[in-house]
Amino acid sequence: MSIESLKQHLRTVPDFPKKGILFYDITTLFKDAACFRELSDRLYEMYKDKGITKVVGVESRGYALGAILAERLGAGFVMVRKAGKLPAEVYRESYDLEYGQSTIEIHKDSISDDDVVLLHDDLLATGGTMDAALRLVSKSHPKAVYLNFIIELTELKGRGTFPRDIEVTSVLQL
Amino acid sequence: MSIESLKQHLRTVPDFPKKGILFYDITTLFKDAACFRELSDRLYEMYKDKGITKVVGVESRGYALGAILAERLGAGFVMVRKAGKLPAEVYRESYDLEYGQSTIEIHKDSISDDDVVLLHDDLLATGGTMDAALRLVSKSHPKAVYLNFIIELTELKGRGTFPRDIEVTSVLQL
Repeated sequence: MSIESLKQHLRTVPDFPKKGILFYDITTLFKDAACFRELSDRLYEMYKDKGITKVVGVESRGYALGAILAERLGAGFVMVRKAGKLPAEVYRESYDLEYGQSTIEIHKDSISDDDVVLLHDDLLATGGTMDAALRLVSKSHPKAVYLNFIIELTELKGRGTFPRDIEVTSVLQL
Repeated sequence: MSIESLKQHLRTVPDFPKKGILFYDITTLFKDAACFRELSDRLYEMYKDKGITKVVGVESRGYALGAILAERLGAGFVMVRKAGKLPAEVYRESYDLEYGQSTIEIHKDSISDDDVVLLHDDLLATGGTMDAALRLVSKSHPKAVYLNFIIELTELKGRGTFPRDIEVTSVLQL
């Protein structure tokens, strides 16, 4: 299946979550078995030779393909969650939203300094959430970190948020 | 890997989210690559011959193995989400929590009447969330529905919540 075909399966919803925003709805790719398999295959091909030992998914849409990647790569799967959801000791980072702040957490014992980490989320917009997730993961000093998204909204230049020496990939550029 | 070994990898956290509750922390199974693969393999074996066409994961821990199962079974993956997160037309169901209510949604066009659905969540406690998710899925009149959990807290008798003609499975009974 081509990139063009994947893009055609993506639904756009105007004025969600509020007026003036064009929302890219990835659920139409996920519910289609052929698209879902294609995304999985493309991500697996991108990371199969990187020595990934942990895949970290960002809550909550990042859990779907993050978990699949972990399983296919033979890595562990780690969840970055909204504040207050993880029961053991956590690292915590806050980041700015358009209005107010959000806080995310990761278990302190989820990553060690001999891990090679792939951080995954579904969408790269301005990069605020992933930047906070990257700060969380970095507290454990893994050997290497890679960042990956399914969709990248290139006009928003979100990848400029991340340190230059970190490799950032996406499947669909819009 | 044995069931006993999987159970040994599960962390219990006393007094979370509040005093008197013993929390079963599945993140310690997920972060361990061998445990994660073992859960995936066991679930795949349970459902590989059922003709599943859609796997529905319940937000948010149900997305991890739900997505893996969908990919391995060659099915589509559908997300039941907390209210207000899905951008297109939704069905909506509320259910009682210990204090107050919670509301979950599913896209109306995510399941059709020729689908065979596997509904997955990580934990079966009293069954309230899954019962609401089952009502959501049933609105689309799929050909069949199966319910699956990773962990089942048998003392709480949650499976008694569901209609008797629906097959309910779990990997770990505690």
